[in-house]
Amino acid sequence: MNMANITKKVSWSSRGDDSARGEATPLLNGSEEVRYTRQPSGGLFHISRLSTVDLEEEITSEEDSVRTRPNMIPHNEKLLSLKYESLDYDNIENQLFLEEERRMSHMGFRCLEISRWVICGLIGFLTGLIACFIDIVVEKLAGMKYIVVKQNIEKYTEVGGLSISLILWAVLNSSLVMIGAIVVAFIEPIAAGSGIPQIKCYLNGVKIPRVVRLKTLLVKVFGVICSVAGGLAVGKEGPMIHSGAVVAAGVSQGRSTSLKKDFKIFEYFRRDTEKRDFVSAGAAAGVSAAFGAPVGGVLFSLEEGASFWNQMLTWRIFFASMISTFTLNFFLSIYNNKTGDLSNPGLINFGRFDSDTVAYNLYEIPLFIIMGAIGGLLGALFNFLNYWLTIFRIRYVHRPCFQVIEAMLVAAVTATVSFTMIYFSNDCQPLGQDQTKDDYPLQLFCADGEYNSMATAFFNTPERSVRSLFHNPPGSYNPLTLGLFTLTYFFLACWTYGLTVSAGVFIPSLLIGAAWGRLFGILLSYFTSGSSIWAGPGKYALIGAAAQLGGIVRMTLSLTVIMVEATGNVTFGLPIMLVLMTAKIVGDYFAEGLYDIHIKLQSVPFLHYEAPATSHWLTAREVMSSPVTCFNRVEKVGTIVNTLSNTSTNHNGFPVVIQIPDSDEPGKVCGLILRSQLIVLLKHKVFVERARTRLSQRKLQLKDFRDAYPRFPPIQSIHVSQDERECMMDLSEFMNPTPYTVPQETSLPRVFKLFRALGLRHLLVVDSENRVVGLVTRKDLARYHMGKHGLEELQLAQT
Amino acid sequence: MNMANITKKVSWSSRGDDSARGEATPLLNGSEEVRYTRQPSGGLFHISRLSTVDLEEEITSEEDSVRTRPNMIPHNEKLLSLKYESLDYDNIENQLFLEEERRMSHMGFRCLEISRWVICGLIGFLTGLIACFIDIVVEKLAGMKYIVVKQNIEKYTEVGGLSISLILWAVLNSSLVMIGAIVVAFIEPIAAGSGIPQIKCYLNGVKIPRVVRLKTLLVKVFGVICSVAGGLAVGKEGPMIHSGAVVAAGVSQGRSTSLKKDFKIFEYFRRDTEKRDFVSAGAAAGVSAAFGAPVGGVLFSLEEGASFWNQMLTWRIFFASMISTFTLNFFLSIYNNKTGDLSNPGLINFGRFDSDTVAYNLYEIPLFIIMGAIGGLLGALFNFLNYWLTIFRIRYVHRPCFQVIEAMLVAAVTATVSFTMIYFSNDCQPLGQDQTKDDYPLQLFCADGEYNSMATAFFNTPERSVRSLFHNPPGSYNPLTLGLFTLTYFFLACWTYGLTVSAGVFIPSLLIGAAWGRLFGILLSYFTSGSSIWAGPGKYALIGAAAQLGGIVRMTLSLTVIMVEATGNVTFGLPIMLVLMTAKIVGDYFAEGLYDIHIKLQSVPFLHYEAPATSHWLTAREVMSSPVTCFNRVEKVGTIVNTLSNTSTNHNGFPVVIQIPDSDEPGKVCGLILRSQLIVLLKHKVFVERARTRLSQRKLQLKDFRDAYPRFPPIQSIHVSQDERECMMDLSEFMNPTPYTVPQETSLPRVFKLFRALGLRHLLVVDSENRVVGLVTRKDLARYHMGKHGLEELQLAQT
Repeated sequence: MNMANITKKVSWSSRGDDSARGEATPLLNGSEEVRYTRQPSGGLFHISRLSTVDLEEEITSEEDSVRTRPNMIPHNEKLLSLKYESLDYDNIENQLFLEEERRMSHMGFRCLEISRWVICGLIGFLTGLIACFIDIVVEKLAGMKYIVVKQNIEKYTEVGGLSISLILWAVLNSSLVMIGAIVVAFIEPIAAGSGIPQIKCYLNGVKIPRVVRLKTLLVKVFGVICSVAGGLAVGKEGPMIHSGAVVAAGVSQGRSTSLKKDFKIFEYFRRDTEKRDFVSAGAAAGVSAAFGAPVGGVLFSLEEGASFWNQMLTWRIFFASMISTFTLNFFLSIYNNKTGDLSNPGLINFGRFDSDTVAYNLYEIPLFIIMGAIGGLLGALFNFLNYWLTIFRIRYVHRPCFQVIEAMLVAAVTATVSFTMIYFSNDCQPLGQDQTKDDYPLQLFCADGEYNSMATAFFNTPERSVRSLFHNPPGSYNPLTLGLFTLTYFFLACWTYGLTVSAGVFIPSLLIGAAWGRLFGILLSYFTSGSSIWAGPGKYALIGAAAQLGGIVRMTLSLTVIMVEATGNVTFGLPIMLVLMTAKIVGDYFAEGLYDIHIKLQSVPFLHYEAPATSHWLTAREVMSSPVTCFNRVEKVGTIVNTLSNTSTNHNGFPVVIQIPDSDEPGKVCGLILRSQLIVLLKHKVFVERARTRLSQRKLQLKDFRDAYPRFPPIQSIHVSQDERECMMDLSEFMNPTPYTVPQETSLPRVFKLFRALGLRHLLVVDSENRVVGLVTRKDLARYHMGKHGLEELQLAQT
Repeated sequence: MNMANITKKVSWSSRGDDSARGEATPLLNGSEEVRYTRQPSGGLFHISRLSTVDLEEEITSEEDSVRTRPNMIPHNEKLLSLKYESLDYDNIENQLFLEEERRMSHMGFRCLEISRWVICGLIGFLTGLIACFIDIVVEKLAGMKYIVVKQNIEKYTEVGGLSISLILWAVLNSSLVMIGAIVVAFIEPIAAGSGIPQIKCYLNGVKIPRVVRLKTLLVKVFGVICSVAGGLAVGKEGPMIHSGAVVAAGVSQGRSTSLKKDFKIFEYFRRDTEKRDFVSAGAAAGVSAAFGAPVGGVLFSLEEGASFWNQMLTWRIFFASMISTFTLNFFLSIYNNKTGDLSNPGLINFGRFDSDTVAYNLYEIPLFIIMGAIGGLLGALFNFLNYWLTIFRIRYVHRPCFQVIEAMLVAAVTATVSFTMIYFSNDCQPLGQDQTKDDYPLQLFCADGEYNSMATAFFNTPERSVRSLFHNPPGSYNPLTLGLFTLTYFFLACWTYGLTVSAGVFIPSLLIGAAWGRLFGILLSYFTSGSSIWAGPGKYALIGAAAQLGGIVRMTLSLTVIMVEATGNVTFGLPIMLVLMTAKIVGDYFAEGLYDIHIKLQSVPFLHYEAPATSHWLTAREVMSSPVTCFNRVEKVGTIVNTLSNTSTNHNGFPVVIQIPDSDEPGKVCGLILRSQLIVLLKHKVFVERARTRLSQRKLQLKDFRDAYPRFPPIQSIHVSQDERECMMDLSEFMNPTPYTVPQETSLPRVFKLFRALGLRHLLVVDSENRVVGLVTRKDLARYHMGKHGLEELQLAQT
């Protein structure tokens, strides 16, 4: 809603005529107004439009179109939702703030710095604990389930009637998944999925409602336990990132609004800027706990947070990550009765890749690149299928009960498919010495001392299946098993992602990739007649896993480092990087990354790193919303209340101006005030008249704003009497007196850079006299993006 | 010089009186001017001044003081030099640029993107080659030297007369070092040292003259070979970072100004913004080649470049790093006749730390933290000694011939001390099987089949000594040897850093740390009566090395990752991080990091990540330089030439304003033009009159500016006739029409953030009418820093 401020926009079609005028001629006439007309250059600046939208309609005001369109195009990635507000990473440097900062001593700043470290330590510790809890509970639950099913299968293998085992397995899975899905669908739908897209949005500056609440965390943790134990094709790693972020948002604020408990500590950190830094640390701690990858965690936060690099901040994030992996490691070592043995740094453990036995050679690099391309292709296919599935779900499966039923159905199908695959597989392998503890090998129809190889892949938690694919000695799997497994698991995982359960896509991706990677390795050694130089299908499984994961999620540096840290071996850095790069290039050609697709389908106004390359011909004048609702320094309460109550605009930021008396011209900018600030002012009735009559009235302090953060009450809940409406409010002390401004001629990339680098929420556009002519918000920038055919403009909609 | 624009500054002493006025009272009177007076709060806002400067003198204009002061305080870290210009990371979005961007198609941007990748690949490849070249030549030279000396020592050990060996050794070392020092001192002094401080400054936005020239690279490479082969206590790793940066700056520009060769490619990248990105990649490639640490390289660039994180840019930097380590690895494998064996990813190789044999345990962590503290203390001592030495050198050893003599002296002393230590040592160890190839063991007075243990440390390249300390089995060194070695090497390294030779401090730091770390480990096992749990002094050597290096250079995340990548073992992540953190905290308490000290001693206007914490009470009004020299949109050539020729001001950026006719008021901002642009305009005589008379005259293009970049001719070299002085110049097309501006009330941290996040060179300060009232440049911001007693202000000087 903060975007708003659009009352009327000259639409493209009406301005399109200008472009026929030809040559870019600066109209130099001594005035300060230089205006460029666009050049006609063969569709170069062509704006692709939604074909369903009549151009005629464009000329009507945007307001109208906003109201009418949603029903026509219910869910589409070419829309930008107006329902998301922005976070404000720009400090409001008003008088209150400056006074506080000026009062604070050198020592005070030191104490703040120390609190930041303490908070990061706590975030790491708690995130590690949560990871540990999830791991142990999932282990126990899944263990119990597999043992029950195994015994049942063993019982019926000889006497016949294995269909009973199948039903047992399917029912067990479905019940677990049902519980998880019910919790998510009915209590906290935002806890569905991995949470990574949501955290990406949060770090990008979009306020996703309820994403960092305590309730979300509880539902997430409970949900992920149910869905992983329920045997879905999911992992528990993605949700850790979300969990870490919630922990961070909670700890750093020193209170829980849900529990109505305020510890009266860390009050200084109750604003978006500081909170974001901690949430970055939390996300990093989550990655670190999930993959045992502290550096990867930091890079993930940076890649997604994409903000100005600050040495101390990064160092703190790294500290949180380290503490997190260490806590997990330590408590797991106690749980495993090996106190002090720090060999389990993450939830997923790739096992040891020894550089002696599994080294790669120069001539293998082209092969890796081919695998990267395959990963990119399969990833694009995965994303494409999931895209259609998600569209389908948005349209037809939006009622919670349907969502629960779908989740149960998937769980049952997963069990059935797995069972069928195991049942019809005749790939028997001799039983190793060390497999009894870690796996649940099924003998089924194999000879004594042998086990069903398909079952190692299906009848197991996905983490263990990945590890087996990486490390089992050559010959443990036959190619047909792997091929069938890849095929079925690919579709299962694709179907599963997007269900209303909380679960991640990392592990299924790794598993699919590891399977076809190992298959690739085995086929390779067939074709080279088993020459020893191609030994080690485990290596190919690793590369395949990287390729598949890269093809699906399209992360770059952070994913490379996560993979390298998870393997614990630096040697594989180059091949993993090459593979991820190839997968990204190939994949990007066909479809976007999975997270980006889901962000787009939610119509979130997400800002990328840079403005679209070909957008230099757009200027602030064309991008901004105007006219802008402004307030005077001393404004009538009635005016303010009316403006805030206007639901059709619902603006969030208001320039404060100095009106020239007896003039109709727009006033000169002297500040910017936010809706949230005005709400607090109204609530405390900070009126000029009151200050005069009751001198003893307590002066409003920064604390009052912090106490209200982040859940400011709506304007409707504040009662303002008719008398009070006639009072005046002096905004000078509370407004941000130095908001960032740009002239109207500023190009879009320049506006974008300023906006993004400083994490702004509102950017004022002024004319040469310093008068407000427009306001740029996140949605004004996010609506331009590069499509297949050049610059595209998204529609704004009240979805 | 770009700072300049100071004609008169109200000095602090004159304003100091105001602070007595008391309470911060917003003078709210309906006008837009809110001004805060400072609060008197017990020295909280106390500005420490240089005691040598009379307060009276302050009231005179800064101009005068600049001229008189340098002789009084010749070199002091409390000065800020005016001689350094800034780089401009803000795109000049003038009409020419916008037209070019608008003409460019989607495909054009793709091609640019591909060129960027190609350039990064080339940077990585060439940097790797250079690293390979240095490694092989140093290896050969040092090998020859050690064999000659060894034979000589063996010859004289029995017959007596070892003083001849000493002289031979000293003379060999001195001659090599002499050649290196002569080249550096007489041909390119900027190539001295590791180059890391210079690259830090460059990435920070300071233009260090000649730092990325081809000549610098050649001298650097030649110099480092001589100094390492000459047996100084130096490493060849630091210079690789500088070399990588030079390679990047050269390759990305598609030409060599020194060789007068223009390949007419990559012309788009001929501006500071693009060049900086490539230099980051080059520095990263250098780190990567030096330590086999591609991720560490990327983090180094980010930590030092400290700019906005862009996914594609980071990914490209990583690509350059990967290619660099890969190239080095590949060519070394060919050189070692093991083509395809990729086990030498960096110049320094820490050898394999196997996690089975060298694991750490939980109770060792307090010990590691203690070692971190020791490292911090020793590092601070090192930096402190080196600080005084550098001051001494700046004052008394500034003539090139003295510098060469000092370098030779150090070389001779190093050889003598080493020889003495070896001679008097009676630590004989049995000769291992695998030591003949890699080391140069000296038997000296030891029994047959034994070797002198002191000699492994001294009679070897530092890289090999480090490796021996990490990996030689327990018992290879006795504590006395290690203690003596630490002591002597500490002082030698401290004396050596700052000599006029090109060499780095990484390896000596690691070596000192490894020595006392191993000593620590040995003592530990003594005190615990050799209990097996404390086994492995190599582990303590590694931790000691990290502690010492961290204590000296104070890098954080990047150093952790570099160390982890160099050991090739992720397990040591947490202890290394804890150790580096402790070392930094302890070290920072006593002295700054070595690079920061050297940057300060050069009086470079370096901007840190954030403004000093307690600087909120300073506003743009107080920080800015004013009045500002402005130009009109259409300005008389004579005025421009006169302004540019004024050596007393030497401004680099000029606001372009619209003067209100018949008014004395400052004009309204409508743009910003740089000295370099004006020079090009004058050179091409782009005068309004000419355009009228000769219509056929070629229109000035962006290419003309790019061709002149980066060595714009001085104004003196451009001839402007008396007639031409009367002409007019129209700046509209060339100026940046949308420079960033801030109001006068903006607080320093806010100005700082804007300036730093966008990499600005000039920031205009405007009043409420949009009239220029001041200009903020890098030096205006860099002069405020946190001292021991609160905010300090540096003096500006023409050093």
